[in-house]
Amino acid sequence: MLEPYIEYMHIKDAVKETGFVVPAGEGDGHIEEILRRFAKKEGARILSVEPHLKVFTGLKDLEKDDTGTTKMGKFVYPDNLASFAEACTACHALAEKAQPVRYGIIGVGNMGSSHFNYYFEGQLQEMRLVAVADTDPVRLEMVKDQLDNILCFNTAEELMDSGTCDAVIIAVPHYFHPIYTMYALNKGLHVMTEKPAGVYTKKVREANEFAAKSDKVYAIMYNQRTNCIYRKLRELVQGGEFGEIKRVNWIITNWYRTQAYYNSGGWRATWAGEGGGVLLNQCPHNLDLWQWICGMPNKIQAFCHEGKWHDIEVEDDVTIYAEYPNGATGVFITSTGDAPGTNRLEITMDKGHIVCENNKLRLYKLDVSTKEHCATSPNGFGSPKGVWSDVETDGWNPQHVGVLNAFAANILRGEPLVGRGEEGISGLTISNAAHLSSWLGRPVELPLDEDLFYNKLQEKIANSKAKKEIKDAVAQNMADSFGN
Amino acid sequence: MLEPYIEYMHIKDAVKETGFVVPAGEGDGHIEEILRRFAKKEGARILSVEPHLKVFTGLKDLEKDDTGTTKMGKFVYPDNLASFAEACTACHALAEKAQPVRYGIIGVGNMGSSHFNYYFEGQLQEMRLVAVADTDPVRLEMVKDQLDNILCFNTAEELMDSGTCDAVIIAVPHYFHPIYTMYALNKGLHVMTEKPAGVYTKKVREANEFAAKSDKVYAIMYNQRTNCIYRKLRELVQGGEFGEIKRVNWIITNWYRTQAYYNSGGWRATWAGEGGGVLLNQCPHNLDLWQWICGMPNKIQAFCHEGKWHDIEVEDDVTIYAEYPNGATGVFITSTGDAPGTNRLEITMDKGHIVCENNKLRLYKLDVSTKEHCATSPNGFGSPKGVWSDVETDGWNPQHVGVLNAFAANILRGEPLVGRGEEGISGLTISNAAHLSSWLGRPVELPLDEDLFYNKLQEKIANSKAKKEIKDAVAQNMADSFGN
Repeated sequence: MLEPYIEYMHIKDAVKETGFVVPAGEGDGHIEEILRRFAKKEGARILSVEPHLKVFTGLKDLEKDDTGTTKMGKFVYPDNLASFAEACTACHALAEKAQPVRYGIIGVGNMGSSHFNYYFEGQLQEMRLVAVADTDPVRLEMVKDQLDNILCFNTAEELMDSGTCDAVIIAVPHYFHPIYTMYALNKGLHVMTEKPAGVYTKKVREANEFAAKSDKVYAIMYNQRTNCIYRKLRELVQGGEFGEIKRVNWIITNWYRTQAYYNSGGWRATWAGEGGGVLLNQCPHNLDLWQWICGMPNKIQAFCHEGKWHDIEVEDDVTIYAEYPNGATGVFITSTGDAPGTNRLEITMDKGHIVCENNKLRLYKLDVSTKEHCATSPNGFGSPKGVWSDVETDGWNPQHVGVLNAFAANILRGEPLVGRGEEGISGLTISNAAHLSSWLGRPVELPLDEDLFYNKLQEKIANSKAKKEIKDAVAQNMADSFGN
Repeated sequence: MLEPYIEYMHIKDAVKETGFVVPAGEGDGHIEEILRRFAKKEGARILSVEPHLKVFTGLKDLEKDDTGTTKMGKFVYPDNLASFAEACTACHALAEKAQPVRYGIIGVGNMGSSHFNYYFEGQLQEMRLVAVADTDPVRLEMVKDQLDNILCFNTAEELMDSGTCDAVIIAVPHYFHPIYTMYALNKGLHVMTEKPAGVYTKKVREANEFAAKSDKVYAIMYNQRTNCIYRKLRELVQGGEFGEIKRVNWIITNWYRTQAYYNSGGWRATWAGEGGGVLLNQCPHNLDLWQWICGMPNKIQAFCHEGKWHDIEVEDDVTIYAEYPNGATGVFITSTGDAPGTNRLEITMDKGHIVCENNKLRLYKLDVSTKEHCATSPNGFGSPKGVWSDVETDGWNPQHVGVLNAFAANILRGEPLVGRGEEGISGLTISNAAHLSSWLGRPVELPLDEDLFYNKLQEKIANSKAKKEIKDAVAQNMADSFGN
């Protein structure tokens, strides 16, 4: 309650159980958290250390309790210098640990603005926003209006060159994701890239290989992985209790978009600017969840319809048929032209069947494996018995904030990420394979022929009639519309 | 209540409104229906005509009412001969009209037995079962145990040659359907064939052309068309209120079958005996409903997995992708290996969206066409508004009995059939196209290359490892396992 008014603090730390006084940060006083919160305030922070930490005459009387001992335990020093040195060491360690991740947002358009707001609303305890970059001065002005001391840069490169950040969030058009990822890692910055990891796996593989040689954290904004429904679903499917997957059907069409949406950004829905339509823009989360929950298919045949519901050159209606190494099959249907649209995912396994719809999980648990029942039942028509139930989840769904807090915790303490950047290539592989299969009119086997996809994409760009300015080849100089 | 005890009836007929006495069958006495029910009793029926129908002396006194007139109206005859002749004509006409359709069942296996039961339970008012044919004497014996006077034949041909029936129900393995259809029509018999109309459209087309030259009724057992849910769905989709179809997805996997099922009949699940698996056996209704509700696609790509869940040589797992002339797309997923399985059909239209699941229809009615909203809304993300509602139906779902009663009514009075036999080719075309596409590993355009499908099917039969005895080429001599 009084937090906003604090200007000065006198810190002592102790262990509650024993009552021993200890150097700051080694006790139960939550000194690290207190310092971290204090550090988030505007302006420089100062920690001073008192020079009289030797056990002085009279301390015994001051500190002794009923047992006649002092509570200094092992922390009794021979002289002032020794105790002062110990206190300084403790303070340094604390300050180091309490330091939030200083980060910059590259691109404060739709997604970048949301990232700004998560910070501004105080939801990111271990991150401090110090800089933003955008090619649009109006957007920079809007940020500055809200946060006085923020550093503003006109290009992504200037921000990354500035040495003011420990990490960056990349929230610019897709083509730039792997490019800026590599640029940032090269500058010793941790990276959180927005999805998709890129437009084509050839480039994302390059970024992944680059990241493998870096000691910095490379993460991807797979915020849907934080959804309790999908986490629980993955746990059920991968837990093994229900046996192998037989079939997965996902109809995900509840993201209707108007023509105005596609007209809103110059890079949108063009081969040169975005590199695809619904697969690259709306679906990356779902393509990731699909493989995160069910594993990667080994064969894809897709039917992508370009400009079917909108005046755009890229696909806005897709049906993907997939086959898995174990023989299972899958169908993934998406579009930005359906209203009200459907989001229904069903997964059939040997001993269970799960339907995920309307933010609910319904599980049919079979008493016996279908495979076994098939082989042993003398009855021709009887289905193996089972029971339907509603599946409970932990209800936790922190989305972007959860991903960013995990990112900071990973940087600071090595805690697990929600999505490692390297994993971004999996969903993108499905996306690229779907495009390629549709363009070729035949099934595409995985691993994907990444060069073939790249070449076909370049043909699409070359034959594009859309008057768009962004070209991948000159991306670093042409960051003139990112953030839209 | 007294119906079973009636041995003799004295018939008079009159018009209620005017009170006029009229020749039997021309009044409101339901004489035709009474005679029809009377005729259903075992043994020969006799109609006799009284010879004293002249207006006799004293009739005036007997019949006159308060107005002083008789109620004989125009039916006053000059002499006995004239009135007797008139009465005989009326009785003949009545007897002709009241005559139920005499029919035979070819094959009293699974489906044929059900057909027998519908009759035995008295659900078919306008049909009289007079004969059955089956190659299995045990089955014939079972029928005879229940119906003393029934004629039993050891082959379909003997029954059709016997001249005892007006119509036949063909309930034998699929290959025989078009063959017996033509045989029956050639013998002047009306035909109700079980689904599917045949195994390959080339043969069914032959039957259709044969039927076109016949004046007999050719019908198909599309009993699911009588289901109020599907009738209502068709009405909603074809009514035009919701604009064009954009997408249709049908997951229909709730017909789990065990290995024992496939082992139960020698012809089952073989290329030679059945000509396919789930597409030919479980799906014909749904493939028909699909086209009946949504129209015919013009392009099919399918993925049929043979012997995936069972030890059979034909497909038991199928995913069909379809495209329609207007650009709409469809997916149809089926299998006999899933438990508990799903039956969920959703149809997306320009101004409406319908979900059919758990015997319920849910409709989302949009206030404005998606096409129009897309073009005119200044908002990028807003979906057009609409309202969900549960759709009411008439609740009528007479299934096989409904189809058979309509069949009789069509024969007797030209009332509409539930399914014309000629329509059977549509669903089968989708089925054949799905097989062909899967075998070729590429999309198949419609109209189907029927010769190509036929040749590929013959290859499948030739390469079959299943030891089955039925061959299409010798079908008429090899009817040794129909009825299984």
